[in-house]
Amino acid sequence: MRAAVMRDWQLRVDEIPDPEPGPGQVLTRVLACGICGSDLHLLVHGEESRKLTEELRAGEAPDPTAPQMFEPSRDVVMGHEFCCEVIGVGPGVEGLREGDVVTSMPVAFDATGVHPLGFSNGYPGGYAELMVLNEMLAMKIPAGLPAEVAAFTEPLAVGAHAVAKSRIAQGDAAIVLGCGPVGLACIAEMRMRGIGPIVAADFSPKRRQLAEVLGADVVVDPREQPAIDAWRRIDGSKPLVIFEAVGVPGMIEQAMRMAPKDARILVVGVCMQEDRIHPMLGIGRELSIQFVLGYTPEEFAGSLEALADGRIDLRPWHTGTVDIDGVPQAFADLGNPETHAKILVVPRTS
Amino acid sequence: MRAAVMRDWQLRVDEIPDPEPGPGQVLTRVLACGICGSDLHLLVHGEESRKLTEELRAGEAPDPTAPQMFEPSRDVVMGHEFCCEVIGVGPGVEGLREGDVVTSMPVAFDATGVHPLGFSNGYPGGYAELMVLNEMLAMKIPAGLPAEVAAFTEPLAVGAHAVAKSRIAQGDAAIVLGCGPVGLACIAEMRMRGIGPIVAADFSPKRRQLAEVLGADVVVDPREQPAIDAWRRIDGSKPLVIFEAVGVPGMIEQAMRMAPKDARILVVGVCMQEDRIHPMLGIGRELSIQFVLGYTPEEFAGSLEALADGRIDLRPWHTGTVDIDGVPQAFADLGNPETHAKILVVPRTS
Repeated sequence: MRAAVMRDWQLRVDEIPDPEPGPGQVLTRVLACGICGSDLHLLVHGEESRKLTEELRAGEAPDPTAPQMFEPSRDVVMGHEFCCEVIGVGPGVEGLREGDVVTSMPVAFDATGVHPLGFSNGYPGGYAELMVLNEMLAMKIPAGLPAEVAAFTEPLAVGAHAVAKSRIAQGDAAIVLGCGPVGLACIAEMRMRGIGPIVAADFSPKRRQLAEVLGADVVVDPREQPAIDAWRRIDGSKPLVIFEAVGVPGMIEQAMRMAPKDARILVVGVCMQEDRIHPMLGIGRELSIQFVLGYTPEEFAGSLEALADGRIDLRPWHTGTVDIDGVPQAFADLGNPETHAKILVVPRTS
Repeated sequence: MRAAVMRDWQLRVDEIPDPEPGPGQVLTRVLACGICGSDLHLLVHGEESRKLTEELRAGEAPDPTAPQMFEPSRDVVMGHEFCCEVIGVGPGVEGLREGDVVTSMPVAFDATGVHPLGFSNGYPGGYAELMVLNEMLAMKIPAGLPAEVAAFTEPLAVGAHAVAKSRIAQGDAAIVLGCGPVGLACIAEMRMRGIGPIVAADFSPKRRQLAEVLGADVVVDPREQPAIDAWRRIDGSKPLVIFEAVGVPGMIEQAMRMAPKDARILVVGVCMQEDRIHPMLGIGRELSIQFVLGYTPEEFAGSLEALADGRIDLRPWHTGTVDIDGVPQAFADLGNPETHAKILVVPRTS
């Protein structure tokens, strides 16, 4: 099959063997798969991040249930925000059949262990024509929900989880730093929960516009007005949660510098490099920093429901579509925030 | 009066003018004042820390109720862990009289604003013969409690506050990194609350012994056994709170590296320098970092009560006594953890 393949931290399009479903698994055709910012980060900072993980695991008791790490010198097909149609079933599959449209938390498991879909040598992710999914994790897409929207379940779940972890409640206010997909997902989730005011900051006019469409009360260009000033102007008294959704070095310190006393900082951007902070900034104002990752199965299912019943409408996110051959160019294009928020990979039907 | 004076980040003993109580204030004779590790840090890293505070305040709306910063080129008498005897009262004082023995949160206020006792050009702290305190903040020492123990109210309150902020509860476990006074105060407070197991780590045998006396269940030399291994051996399942009570660069990262999934890190050590972390360590395990500072008036009063009624016995803390002339040498001696935990300054009665 055709796939966008990463090897040695380089991306290229190639033909690779079709995957085959094992017991309890289904073979699917990818209908749509979102390109995630962390895939872009991985190409650049993957080696650093991988070394850190290896170092940590070396100091721990071996955990056979931990997701297996990929070998960067072997092929990896990324893509973990997918919506697929079942085209074949493996032994023992009873609840799914050909034609079912499904999504899944991006994990596969078999007799050899747990494999993170999109970050695995054994299981290709969604930047390919075909994927293998476990029946147990597959969720059927409610009738009427287009595959292009269902593919947003995973990134929305990231926002839903960050918002849940922040324990933000009605009566609190929020600042969202960075209006890429993760920041936008946080905004949409908070808006659905009736939390506000929400101040959103991004350098890009296009992304600020998306933030407004998805539910930010005020958007600022941080070069013109610091987000914290905008918050002070419209509120300045409610307990504040700052969502750091940029994920580059220096952003945690920036959030700490703007934070008022007792603020909570949610780190939802994925910075894979070493970073610098002044602990005194946190000490003087008794800040808390909560790092978050992923989501629970309930949050994933809840996000699919919210998209299906229209409580959250992420269609404005969708700014471009490419086929598999277009994936490398899409990675390059995503560097320009004026052009794109979320690009979907839709493999060309042969 | 005689005082240990800091000027231009240098400490020396000198004669300075006696302070005078204003309206609502009392003049006191210092009976005992503990030397705090943050005073040692201040001599070395004060300028860096001061610049950061100035930078932050420049970006904020002026707050006349914020504690005033001292001018480092002018005299500062440090010492904020004091117990004093009233020897004179200012206009309007009704609830205190000569002979009363008191402590106070280390803050003074007057018509010119709020002044942090021990970090002020206007109000000398406890490394001097005399101090001026506000009647409103003074707490009488219960009968029978020696001044040398009452002086521990402030550092105990720091531990009580950190433990309260951690939201640690019975059923949780704790690791305390660093068994200086702050770490020991956290241990004593948790022990009083019935929380455990408590694993305490310090390079110094003397400090590990103090940690055991004050309530740690297991003490380790981190060169021989990582604290996290000791925790795994005796527990390894309860939700874990790691108290970082060392306060030097690299300790937050160290706590993040050892932390299991969902652990909370309480930063109670005061690191005044820039520090480096890998955010990925926090992201992968969804850690939270809570910075803490100070205490509430209720926590301060509660600490005085716990010392007075014997629920917490910090007498083992007290490892040395000096008079004012001995303060500079005591600062030097505190660099050696084998010799001292807490040195009290007891001005010689003339």
